[in-house]
Formats: sequence, structure tokens, C-alpha cells
Amino acid sequence: MRMSEGVEWAAHACAVLSALPENKGLSAAALAEFHDLAPAYMAKHMQALARAGVVTSIRGAGGGYRLARPATEISLWDIVEAIEGGEPAFRCSEIRQQGPCKTPRADCKRPCGIAARFARAEALWRAELKSMSLADIVMEVVRTRSMARNAEVIAWLREKL
Amino acid sequence: MRMSEGVEWAAHACAVLSALPENKGLSAAALAEFHDLAPAYMAKHMQALARAGVVTSIRGAGGGYRLARPATEISLWDIVEAIEGGEPAFRCSEIRQQGPCKTPRADCKRPCGIAARFARAEALWRAELKSMSLADIVMEVVRTRSMARNAEVIAWLREKL
Repeated sequence: MRMSEGVEWAAHACAVLSALPENKGLSAAALAEFHDLAPAYMAKHMQALARAGVVTSIRGAGGGYRLARPATEISLWDIVEAIEGGEPAFRCSEIRQQGPCKTPRADCKRPCGIAARFARAEALWRAELKSMSLADIVMEVVRTRSMARNAEVIAWLREKL
Repeated sequence: MRMSEGVEWAAHACAVLSALPENKGLSAAALAEFHDLAPAYMAKHMQALARAGVVTSIRGAGGGYRLARPATEISLWDIVEAIEGGEPAFRCSEIRQQGPCKTPRADCKRPCGIAARFARAEALWRAELKSMSLADIVMEVVRTRSMARNAEVIAWLREKL
């Protein structure tokens, strides 16, 4: 079971976008350049974030993507859901209803014990991702990165805007 | 992100094996038949469970697979790990070390904030799966299935052994 690398790219891209001033956007190409990533894939991931309402795009000079709402109101789950979709990782195909000793459909109104337990574990995972905001992450990145590096990031952004 | 259907098959197969008497085994073909599943794939999943030490195989008449230890000592995580491997779903590729503002390797001794948060969420998910034993699941399945269906399962198993 593996999450798409797009989740990592999208999370880092959103962290970069959180540093933009009002009314400014950044292109998918610039976001790809920032981490030296493939522009075509980054464009695809940014489109997915836009469809999910995590980012929005501004047209015209200084346009591009920007966060659709404050970083405090974007969770890590929002980013995962945008890229991976909201389907559970464990998908029950009701095999208890197959074979010589199958359980009749009428007796399968509640999910089977196996599916129910996987759902419970996934709910915990989701709740944890929902509790973590992009703002938390950005604050930590900025705090743990050297001042010189933070200055470099700001200089790079100013050049792109 | 999707878990292999093998996890569902393997979990149900282990639940069936938990009902075997001492010194008896069940073939992968019989386990496939029980839920009307593809025998070749079931064989592959049973081999994975055997390699991980969740099941063991007995040779000779009445041979086949059986649980390698009591159902109380097999967790849902053991089954997931056997089929999917133990790698985390989120795999950090350290993109912070790439691009014009890259963080130098020497400053990346600790995982980045994004990777650390995904690791925390996954740890919760794993801990929950580790806390759920096969015995818990089997007890619930048996309790919620009708007596008639439980009798059918036992009759089917007796015929196969």
C-alpha cells in the first residue's frame, strides 16, 4: 500500500503557497522549479488541489495558484483527499456473501467484523491528518530551517512574483 | 491509496483456519473454495502469510495450512504486513533537499514536518490494527452469524479435513 508521491509534492507546494502575499499566485511551473520536480506532474497535482478547493487560481500578471483559504483551515487530510481521493484504503468486497457457506445478503446489513475494524483504524488515521493544519507544518518548517535558508526562500519568491 | 484485495482474502482465510482442530490443515484450494475466490491468487496470499510466519503448513494426509500460533496472538496488522509489507504508505523522498532553495543535507537529520506528521498518523493506524486480534474478529463473526450458518461452516470443514 503506497500513497502517491503527489501527496508529498502537493503538501510541499501548499507550504510554499502559504508564504505568498495577498492577491498573488504562483504557477505550477514555478512550484515545480522550487523543488526541482517534473512540471507536468506538478501541474496535474495542482489541478487536483484546485478541483478539491484547496487552492484557487488567479488570472493575469502575478497570477497563478494560491491557497483558497488560510493555512490554518487546510488540513493534511484535505491535501491527501485532493490527490488520492476519499475512498478508504481497505475496500470490503463482501466475500462473506460468496461460496458454499455464504451468509445471506439479508444477514449482512452490518459490515463484517474485518471491514469494521479496518474502518475504525482508518478513521483514526484520518482524524489525525485532519487535526494537523498546513499552518502547523509551515510554522515548524520555518522554525527549524536556518535564517539564511528562510531568506533565500523569500528572495526566490519575490523574484517569481 | 488502496490496500490489496489480498488483505481481505487473507483475513477471511485466517478466520476459517482458526476453526481447525489440532494437527489438521486446509489447502489454499479449499480456502479459495470457501469464499469462491480465484485459487491461484489465494495460493499466493497463503504463501505470503506462511513467509511472514502467520500460518504454517502441515504435510501429508489432512495437511495444508493452519495458523502458526493461537488466534489471540495474531493481529490484523500481522496479516496486513504479510500481504502488503511493512513499508509506510507515505514515503518521503526528501524533496526539501532539491531545487534553488534546497535545505543542505546536514540540516536534514530530523524528518521534515510533513513526513513526521504522516508517520504519526500511520503509527496510530498500525497501533489500532495491532490491538485487534484475529480471535476478536472470529468471536464476533461467530456471534453475529446465525447458528444454522455456523453449523454449515463446521459441516463443510469436517468434509474437507
